[in-house]
Amino acid sequence: MTNECPIGLFDSGIGGLTILQELSSRMPHENLVYLADTARFPLGNKPPETIILSAVESAQFLLSQSVKLLIIACFTASSHAYPILQKSLTIPILNVIESGAKKLASSTKTKSVAVLGTTSTIESGALQAEILRIDPTLSIHPIACPLFAPFAEEGLPNHPALFSIASHYLAPLKNTNVDAILLGCTHYPLLTNTLQQVVGPHVQLISPAFSCAQQIEDTLQQKNLQNPTKKKRTIRCFVTANPRKFQSLTQKFLTPSLQKITLAQISTL
Amino acid sequence: MTNECPIGLFDSGIGGLTILQELSSRMPHENLVYLADTARFPLGNKPPETIILSAVESAQFLLSQSVKLLIIACFTASSHAYPILQKSLTIPILNVIESGAKKLASSTKTKSVAVLGTTSTIESGALQAEILRIDPTLSIHPIACPLFAPFAEEGLPNHPALFSIASHYLAPLKNTNVDAILLGCTHYPLLTNTLQQVVGPHVQLISPAFSCAQQIEDTLQQKNLQNPTKKKRTIRCFVTANPRKFQSLTQKFLTPSLQKITLAQISTL
Repeated sequence: MTNECPIGLFDSGIGGLTILQELSSRMPHENLVYLADTARFPLGNKPPETIILSAVESAQFLLSQSVKLLIIACFTASSHAYPILQKSLTIPILNVIESGAKKLASSTKTKSVAVLGTTSTIESGALQAEILRIDPTLSIHPIACPLFAPFAEEGLPNHPALFSIASHYLAPLKNTNVDAILLGCTHYPLLTNTLQQVVGPHVQLISPAFSCAQQIEDTLQQKNLQNPTKKKRTIRCFVTANPRKFQSLTQKFLTPSLQKITLAQISTL
Repeated sequence: MTNECPIGLFDSGIGGLTILQELSSRMPHENLVYLADTARFPLGNKPPETIILSAVESAQFLLSQSVKLLIIACFTASSHAYPILQKSLTIPILNVIESGAKKLASSTKTKSVAVLGTTSTIESGALQAEILRIDPTLSIHPIACPLFAPFAEEGLPNHPALFSIASHYLAPLKNTNVDAILLGCTHYPLLTNTLQQVVGPHVQLISPAFSCAQQIEDTLQQKNLQNPTKKKRTIRCFVTANPRKFQSLTQKFLTPSLQKITLAQISTL
């Protein structure tokens, strides 16, 4: 493995691309490779064993692409599979939970915060535990929002139906003094406009894309893993199903859009 | 195998229970066994190979329960897996497409109809082909509605967000003379109230539960497979993941609710 090797990220859908995009603009010389296990999307309502299997197979695929650093770009997979992957891999591995929890804890003034996530992320409690590890005095409102990721994947981030369902999910925050909300799913930054309208301008939405990219940059520096060559870098993207749909979604949301999506032959589906 | 053996049905979620419920009230002496491959829900946006694998493993599980008749209680699985299962099984097998298409064709007066389904069902074209086989003169509007099944599984059949997203999906039917719509997914009958509000009182919504149950009754008669014993029958229900969530959903939608949901150990997830 050399410093020219790519950074690898995986998720079950387009969500982790919010991190890829942030990395892409911050680190113009790093090679990047992204895997979306779209065959198993959405992971958020799956049992832990399915989530772990998806993470292990995704990590194996990215290792076969000689990645120098691995990012679990998905909160659901981070909650369930991070300890297992960390134990079994020899390259550095990061998850999205730690950096998001830190940013949330440093952003609140009222000490009352909320975390939004898939059913599986919220029920695992991993995100809440990490936030409390950083600041045990915080009051946390965890809210499962299982329809948010499907709305993002459907390419409907500004539809009135999303506003309506978001108002339903976030109703418990009315009459609280919550002033910061962690978007605990990498899809949710794509829905920021609508979510900000629902919670109003005085509540800060914490995007995991920014905080995670910062942690990746720090890690590369600390471990002397930066790519020293200045030639044109490559960004490659693989999915386990529906490359055409994935391509059209990335064009709706992300710039620059990925040129080519390749079908990865991994896994027992 | 004897006539006391159960009728087997499978789906990826709660949708097929609309057929189970119809069977349960029509045939009070037939034993019934239902399998929901919830670990793979939703199937509608999965590639054909995943859908076929799910159907084959579900059929194998139900055969191990000695079923005398097998129903693919899911349009997505029916579109992709019916020919394969029909070739490989020795017991009679029915799908939900044929009976639904017949009922639709006999219900329209304007000869202009619509079919709603998951992306995978609509893209497979199997439903449209079956309708045209029955009446080649029909004009068909196929509409993929990928968020409908997640709304049903979330237990939100009357939420304003569903009305909003249904108005979005069904907008192409405005200014047409469509007078009958086949609900081409076994989840959709659970959303009937909201869908009827969107399309108005003059458009008939065809529920696949009624037409499929009728076909099952006819088949049992033709093949002399009715259960002659009049003792108390059993209804058993298996899922491949999240039995607790499944139980609470069935209690919201179906009467009488199923007493016990058992986790089935099948499959590569």
